[in-house]
Amino acid sequence: MSTFGNIFRVTTYGESHCKLVGCIVDGCPPGLDLTEDDIQPQLSRRRPGQLKLSTPRNEKDQVHIQSGTENGKTLGSPIGMLVLNQDHRPHDYLETDLYPRPSHADYTYIQKYGVKLASGGGRSSARETIGRVAAGAIAEKILTKANNVEIVAFVSSIGEVAMDRNPQDEKFQNLLNTITREQVDDVGPVRCPDASVREEMVKVIEKYRDAKDSIGGVVTCVIRNCPIGLGEPCFDKLEATLAHAMMSLPATKGFEFGSGFEGTKIPGSAHNDPFHFCNDSQRLRTKTNNSGGVQGGISNGENIYFSVAFKSAATISQEQPTATYEGKDGVLAAKGRHDPSVTPRAVPIVESMAALVLVDQLLTQKAREYGRTIVS
Amino acid sequence: MSTFGNIFRVTTYGESHCKLVGCIVDGCPPGLDLTEDDIQPQLSRRRPGQLKLSTPRNEKDQVHIQSGTENGKTLGSPIGMLVLNQDHRPHDYLETDLYPRPSHADYTYIQKYGVKLASGGGRSSARETIGRVAAGAIAEKILTKANNVEIVAFVSSIGEVAMDRNPQDEKFQNLLNTITREQVDDVGPVRCPDASVREEMVKVIEKYRDAKDSIGGVVTCVIRNCPIGLGEPCFDKLEATLAHAMMSLPATKGFEFGSGFEGTKIPGSAHNDPFHFCNDSQRLRTKTNNSGGVQGGISNGENIYFSVAFKSAATISQEQPTATYEGKDGVLAAKGRHDPSVTPRAVPIVESMAALVLVDQLLTQKAREYGRTIVS
Amino acid sequence: MSTFGNIFRVTTYGESHCKLVGCIVDGCPPGLDLTEDDIQPQLSRRRPGQLKLSTPRNEKDQVHIQSGTENGKTLGSPIGMLVLNQDHRPHDYLETDLYPRPSHADYTYIQKYGVKLASGGGRSSARETIGRVAAGAIAEKILTKANNVEIVAFVSSIGEVAMDRNPQDEKFQNLLNTITREQVDDVGPVRCPDASVREEMVKVIEKYRDAKDSIGGVVTCVIRNCPIGLGEPCFDKLEATLAHAMMSLPATKGFEFGSGFEGTKIPGSAHNDPFHFCNDSQRLRTKTNNSGGVQGGISNGENIYFSVAFKSAATISQEQPTATYEGKDGVLAAKGRHDPSVTPRAVPIVESMAALVLVDQLLTQKAREYGRTIVS
Amino acid sequence: MSTFGNIFRVTTYGESHCKLVGCIVDGCPPGLDLTEDDIQPQLSRRRPGQLKLSTPRNEKDQVHIQSGTENGKTLGSPIGMLVLNQDHRPHDYLETDLYPRPSHADYTYIQKYGVKLASGGGRSSARETIGRVAAGAIAEKILTKANNVEIVAFVSSIGEVAMDRNPQDEKFQNLLNTITREQVDDVGPVRCPDASVREEMVKVIEKYRDAKDSIGGVVTCVIRNCPIGLGEPCFDKLEATLAHAMMSLPATKGFEFGSGFEGTKIPGSAHNDPFHFCNDSQRLRTKTNNSGGVQGGISNGENIYFSVAFKSAATISQEQPTATYEGKDGVLAAKGRHDPSVTPRAVPIVESMAALVLVDQLLTQKAREYGRTIVS
Repeated sequence: MSTFGNIFRVTTYGESHCKLVGCIVDGCPPGLDLTEDDIQPQLSRRRPGQLKLSTPRNEKDQVHIQSGTENGKTLGSPIGMLVLNQDHRPHDYLETDLYPRPSHADYTYIQKYGVKLASGGGRSSARETIGRVAAGAIAEKILTKANNVEIVAFVSSIGEVAMDRNPQDEKFQNLLNTITREQVDDVGPVRCPDASVREEMVKVIEKYRDAKDSIGGVVTCVIRNCPIGLGEPCFDKLEATLAHAMMSLPATKGFEFGSGFEGTKIPGSAHNDPFHFCNDSQRLRTKTNNSGGVQGGISNGENIYFSVAFKSAATISQEQPTATYEGKDGVLAAKGRHDPSVTPRAVPIVESMAALVLVDQLLTQKAREYGRTIVS
Repeated sequence: MSTFGNIFRVTTYGESHCKLVGCIVDGCPPGLDLTEDDIQPQLSRRRPGQLKLSTPRNEKDQVHIQSGTENGKTLGSPIGMLVLNQDHRPHDYLETDLYPRPSHADYTYIQKYGVKLASGGGRSSARETIGRVAAGAIAEKILTKANNVEIVAFVSSIGEVAMDRNPQDEKFQNLLNTITREQVDDVGPVRCPDASVREEMVKVIEKYRDAKDSIGGVVTCVIRNCPIGLGEPCFDKLEATLAHAMMSLPATKGFEFGSGFEGTKIPGSAHNDPFHFCNDSQRLRTKTNNSGGVQGGISNGENIYFSVAFKSAATISQEQPTATYEGKDGVLAAKGRHDPSVTPRAVPIVESMAALVLVDQLLTQKAREYGRTIVS
Repeated sequence: MSTFGNIFRVTTYGESHCKLVGCIVDGCPPGLDLTEDDIQPQLSRRRPGQLKLSTPRNEKDQVHIQSGTENGKTLGSPIGMLVLNQDHRPHDYLETDLYPRPSHADYTYIQKYGVKLASGGGRSSARETIGRVAAGAIAEKILTKANNVEIVAFVSSIGEVAMDRNPQDEKFQNLLNTITREQVDDVGPVRCPDASVREEMVKVIEKYRDAKDSIGGVVTCVIRNCPIGLGEPCFDKLEATLAHAMMSLPATKGFEFGSGFEGTKIPGSAHNDPFHFCNDSQRLRTKTNNSGGVQGGISNGENIYFSVAFKSAATISQEQPTATYEGKDGVLAAKGRHDPSVTPRAVPIVESMAALVLVDQLLTQKAREYGRTIVS
Repeated sequence: MSTFGNIFRVTTYGESHCKLVGCIVDGCPPGLDLTEDDIQPQLSRRRPGQLKLSTPRNEKDQVHIQSGTENGKTLGSPIGMLVLNQDHRPHDYLETDLYPRPSHADYTYIQKYGVKLASGGGRSSARETIGRVAAGAIAEKILTKANNVEIVAFVSSIGEVAMDRNPQDEKFQNLLNTITREQVDDVGPVRCPDASVREEMVKVIEKYRDAKDSIGGVVTCVIRNCPIGLGEPCFDKLEATLAHAMMSLPATKGFEFGSGFEGTKIPGSAHNDPFHFCNDSQRLRTKTNNSGGVQGGISNGENIYFSVAFKSAATISQEQPTATYEGKDGVLAAKGRHDPSVTPRAVPIVESMAALVLVDQLLTQKAREYGRTIVS
């Protein structure tokens, strides 16, 4: 359904072509400084139209806080936030009255809900993620104050062009240690920090754009300074809730964590992360980090990193042979211009979902820690 | 925590070295024929020691139903099931009193819970999955009766040796259409249906076994005959809950769905699954299935398929340089014999978690369908 | 927290003195005819100022649907609804900067949340119930379509003046069988259907109003045509979820069900409801209904009835000796005019919460019934 | 369903006439000293047969901890506990094969679940509460360590014979301040601390016992030293979750809190609890406590007190005219001897449910407090 989280909960609402999209954030700690200025930056980073490679629909996406704050501070009550839908152009989607768009949600929505939307997208549109990003910005503020947690995502592949993200590669691990959002944004519209592949990625996107086609990619995300002890085995392990969060995003096809699928090929003797005593932090740490910062479903204080696969966007303006709702063969082509690659825009969305998972797990763990303290 | 599901809920309990492990299944429909004979087969398929390649610990794993049935029929009340722990050998694990085992949960459990287990494993052991498999067997009975749903998992890679699971490969799609559990088990201990790589997989496992090492692999699973309309956007999309379920299993590092990570490289024009009218089923179907049976988070009636990455087992009997809890460098070697590859045993566990996800989503959707029927 | 329900969920938001109050209804069946006209009547029934006996603050309380419908039909997606706050007059509440108001939430909110609201009430205000009533109106539409469920609440006591609600009283049971909302509203502002006590109730309210005081009362509610089988033992019995719902309303001090506290005095031989075969409904029914329509936590098809105690309103304009936040003794008097009895206005709120409980239980039970059907 | 609580969760299982009843407690803090000796006392207090007035079925009710502890300390993992069913005598209930027992759950269970139990009671039996009491004993240990929380329940009325529990009565408030479990048990089987009515209560119970009838009563419960700030508005107010918990107990018909139904008759000027500065506790406290320790849904540090109405037991051995499942008129009489008043035995059950509510709210609030600390 449309609510995520247990102690820190976000509920999103709004279709892509109704008046607005928004969210309610329940369980936010009171006393947090919070205005629209805290929310807007991440919303602007996810906005279409900012990247020249991206779709030219210019949605302004200004967030409005409706409740839950007074004099710029949170009250502990539900925080309502909304963004008006300004540029919906329902007239661009008339074909969809006849055709379920291939690999969109049109067919499954009509099967499940029995309602054919007069205009495209509805809740399956990427526009639903606005509420997630607004909520994630609040979650991030809390995480920063809790432990200076840093969450940075970036594009690690576009189509066949991929940077090296082998977990055993020292350069990759160094990147995870140091990469910042500023660096990710500064390198240009594809948001890939690896200069050796970046230009090629741009070319790939341009190629598919010119062909009225689309291409997918992978977003990799690192979480630094995550407190030790987050994750609720056996079913709500940290990686399980992160996977849930990421795979709930539109267009995702895969999630991997730490060594990921590559890790299946590394023998145990090399995959195991041996411990050593770290003088800087005055505690045990692991020499390597194939585990991706989580062992037994619980954060161990090392960098958490994971990757999310985004398929090629389903909306393309070239003609596609397919069938109408009534089953007649025909050809469909989306009107208007469309995003040849949604992957770069997914960067702040992935960060937001990570923040939502972490803040809920953090607050839960603090309840646990309190319990542990008083009984012993 | 230790409960999974909303309407059909399983709660697991028991450590690997206490008296027993078990589960409570709440929300099972009443009137279902159910005895231990329905549960035991999948438990036996997950049992260690049955495969010659696998760990020789022979745990009998006989399930006992404690409540929730009368005269072989479910009552609608919570079904308690347990399996006694017979062969725990706590003496084998004495080293762990000094060392947190690399890439096990020892370090994170002591950080989170503050308790060092006198004997290894606890809840992070694969033995916890017994409760999941017992519950999954009930879920499967319901799914079979609901729509003749078929769930079949198999090993698709061991280390570097992989069968082709390209979504656009016709042979692979045919395999998904036809593979049965009997076929998976009949082909021998690695449970890989592809004869062209199977022998090599055996050799890889033997190689790592002989080297006192371990190796990971991938389990692929197909769900056939899934009813259309399952999945609860926007946060509880079908693939999101499947990802949650799979990534809550011990040793998992990745999850991919339909075209998966490979799908990021396929342009939209080829990735989109065009519709056609299917005379057999008298409804729209897709010609290809890169979507993996789910669009917009909702099942579309095509085969659902996904893959789960299992890392190389952390328990190996070769010596590993690491540090003690106190931070002193030293060398650890697990005593006893250990499973060089847990991947083949994961096959019924993956099936079970898939069944638990589906039955909960199915019952939820039936509540939705009722609502939709009465209001229109 | 601010979310109620499992399959049919409402989340409320908004403080009494911010821009707006509202709710998100998630899980509403798609295809339901729904416009503001369906919501407004119950909102108008709960509005202050409509009854001459009641507070003269005239809040217009016009509801706006923001999402989840298209062309007057629900989409199955979250329905956002809001009501603007028009007449908040924060200047009336300046005393509260110094004093926690006795028996208000000021003290506990500042203890729990650490935030002193610049203006009174916040989320503990009765204004929060607007979201509940808006959501309840949708729930009622569904219940009507499901089984012609009728929910009617009325005032059964004001202060010491009470109508007879003895469960064994035939007149009372007849009233439960026939009372309508129209009748409740037609009898005047106290909403008590018993003419023999109504005038006296008015006098009691006027007496306390003139004394700048307040007085409590009891709201009784009947649910007719509730489908058999609703309620989820052992923890979510129908009466348990109704109690939860009612006791979450502001100013409630008690809940009783069927025979209630009086039932503790009736011996088992008289309290037990014997069965007989009812020719009209062609099924077993009970001759008496001390059980209040629920046995073993599950509805049995008889009238469900219960009563909710509302304490005297805490806001009174007479002077009250108390202490400031700093602990200095002083005297506090609320400015402005205040409602001498909130009980009559609680009538539609009680109905709404009952509807929210029932629709969630109904949809859950339909999932159960489906399960039961397919397995047997 | 059969799970209660959010962070500290109990799941109960087992029918009254199967092998055992039990529970799983998930979310218990690790490191708590815990053996069967901590659980048994409250289980023994709820046991039938101990009071001479009560049913002579002597169930031994010895609890066994199955998981979640090691060396007498909790591990933080799910704690399994069970009690074997020893004295089920299914042969006593043969009549029920033909008759749904009046005011039992027989009729509604068969309607909801479609299954007629071969032997009486199932999950609607009071025996299900064993799991609640076992879990509650753990909850109490935590609450004692957290804040020396004291929970004491007692019988305040049997039939028409009632002690004075007027909230404005000083003697009653003094009793709430001082009453202990030892005192409650020492005064004899009816567990009423008021000597002026106790003997009369015994006579009432004896009268109904001799008449093969039963009689109800009220249990009142006080919680002392509850930390300030517990309760999660707007839907999970402390009194709402307590009401949910209590009304989920078998045979309950009402719940009232603080001044309760009587409070509806006390004008606001007298009902409001004025503040004063308390030198002993060096904080604001209220002079009176009509609020019952909760304001705005949140505990304020004063005594929490509430009462629960238990109807007269449905099982009586006198003959009752009623109808068979098939609708034929007939006469039913329960065989065996039955409890003429379950109210005294409900005392530890009420305490246990109160403890379960409080510990869950306490841990949740500690997560909130942590959040509040770090953001400000």
